Amino acid sequence: MRPSLPIAFCFVATQVLATQAAFAQSDRDILFQLSTIDALLAGVYQPLATLDEVLEHGDFGLGTFAGLDGELVLIDGEVYKAAADGTVRRMPGDTATPFISLTWFDADERLQPPPDQDYAAFKTWLEERLPSPNLTYAVRVDGQFAKVRYRSVPAQKPPYRPLKEVAKEQTYFDSENIAGTLIGFWCPSYVKGLNVPSFHLHFLSDDRKSAGHLLDFTLTEGEVTLDPTTGWTLELPMDKAFLRANLGADRAKALHAVEQGEQ
Amino acid sequence: MRPSLPIAFCFVATQVLATQAAFAQSDRDILFQLSTIDALLAGVYQPLATLDEVLEHGDFGLGTFAGLDGELVLIDGEVYKAAADGTVRRMPGDTATPFISLTWFDADERLQPPPDQDYAAFKTWLEERLPSPNLTYAVRVDGQFAKVRYRSVPAQKPPYRPLKEVAKEQTYFDSENIAGTLIGFWCPSYVKGLNVPSFHLHFLSDDRKSAGHLLDFTLTEGEVTLDPTTGWTLELPMDKAFLRANLGADRAKALHAVEQGEQ
Repeated sequence: MRPSLPIAFCFVATQVLATQAAFAQSDRDILFQLSTIDALLAGVYQPLATLDEVLEHGDFGLGTFAGLDGELVLIDGEVYKAAADGTVRRMPGDTATPFISLTWFDADERLQPPPDQDYAAFKTWLEERLPSPNLTYAVRVDGQFAKVRYRSVPAQKPPYRPLKEVAKEQTYFDSENIAGTLIGFWCPSYVKGLNVPSFHLHFLSDDRKSAGHLLDFTLTEGEVTLDPTTGWTLELPMDKAFLRANLGADRAKALHAVEQGEQ
Repeated sequence: MRPSLPIAFCFVATQVLATQAAFAQSDRDILFQLSTIDALLAGVYQPLATLDEVLEHGDFGLGTFAGLDGELVLIDGEVYKAAADGTVRRMPGDTATPFISLTWFDADERLQPPPDQDYAAFKTWLEERLPSPNLTYAVRVDGQFAKVRYRSVPAQKPPYRPLKEVAKEQTYFDSENIAGTLIGFWCPSYVKGLNVPSFHLHFLSDDRKSAGHLLDFTLTEGEVTLDPTTGWTLELPMDKAFLRANLGADRAKALHAVEQGEQ
């Protein structure tokens, strides 16, 4: 849990009083999040914000849509919906979301992963190269994939069931020899309850015809770009569904099952 | 964990799409926090910001000083240091802090607690009246106390020991028949690792001569004012001490011991 610090990020320079540097960071280095992952796990799929509202806070991220209607991918300011029927389409600004994490993506560090890595090997490889396990990183991987396995979830109607139940009905997709991008975040363990500790990535093909929540891959070749964030802005929705959700439970096991596609 | 919603906060009004109201909330309803409670428990007492820097984000809150040099109380924009030797004094803006939580305090709701409550009864009484267990509340209690028990911690020198070790050397203070104010927060359980779930209060006497981290009280009479927050801003310090701290451990037991004064 305490990796070495091999990457020379400018802000890791030794400083007695780090405040000037820290507070000079622009708002671009803030992770903005609407609602919490535990609220989503509890079934809070209500429309809590429009894309127009949340996209004021970034151009890169992931989430889902109101009613849990598919996987959300945000890249270069464009929002795509990966529906459970396998379709992928751009979504207008008045579309509503119950959960999204995003930031302004700056390619602060570029890394070349070894060829032909699977997701498990990739995670180990990249975690060893993060400057600190105590920050959140926006992670983007552009590459050629020998295989990618991903999923999407079907739209729900109220009363909403917990995500673990809904995920049993998720649709799996497998693509081979496909060019695409992984979009998402690496979060430290202390965000448990708010977001997903470790990696959380969505996939979008270069031709914008295939997308979903990433489950596994073999990355033939590619490039990783990282954008460390220096802070979080958490927006708590003033909606009955959120205010009354049971957020006192430990949903770590449910999260693991949902994230990994184990049902 | 799911109390009723007896208090008619304006934002609890039923709304299908809560976003307009939520996003119209001013920055005054944001809890700003520098560093994390787990970093403090791990011994990250380094100077990470000056008071001038953090007081841009609020006028009410609590924390500590660089080197863990006493308990910090922020009320009406004024910062007081409660040192382990029992002295209380106002601190200048260039004083450094490793951890602080603060907001702009607005008395959105006023409550009259039953007379002669002790801290345990008070906590139960107030938690039953919070509109939702999923928000963070700034809590202010002005009153007359038959008894107050509080503590402060002695200044440390590097290499810093974990807070649980340092707290064994804390100084206890007991006051009787004293007028004063409790300043602090109630946080939901999902902020574990970032801040203190449930209540975290500091005491400051009306004559500004007695102060510290609250351990227990008997509140003869008083008034509670609440300010719910609709979001968090978490500033992660770009300091080696924070970046290299072991934040992967579960410090819930250490936190409980430190907060309750059990050593």
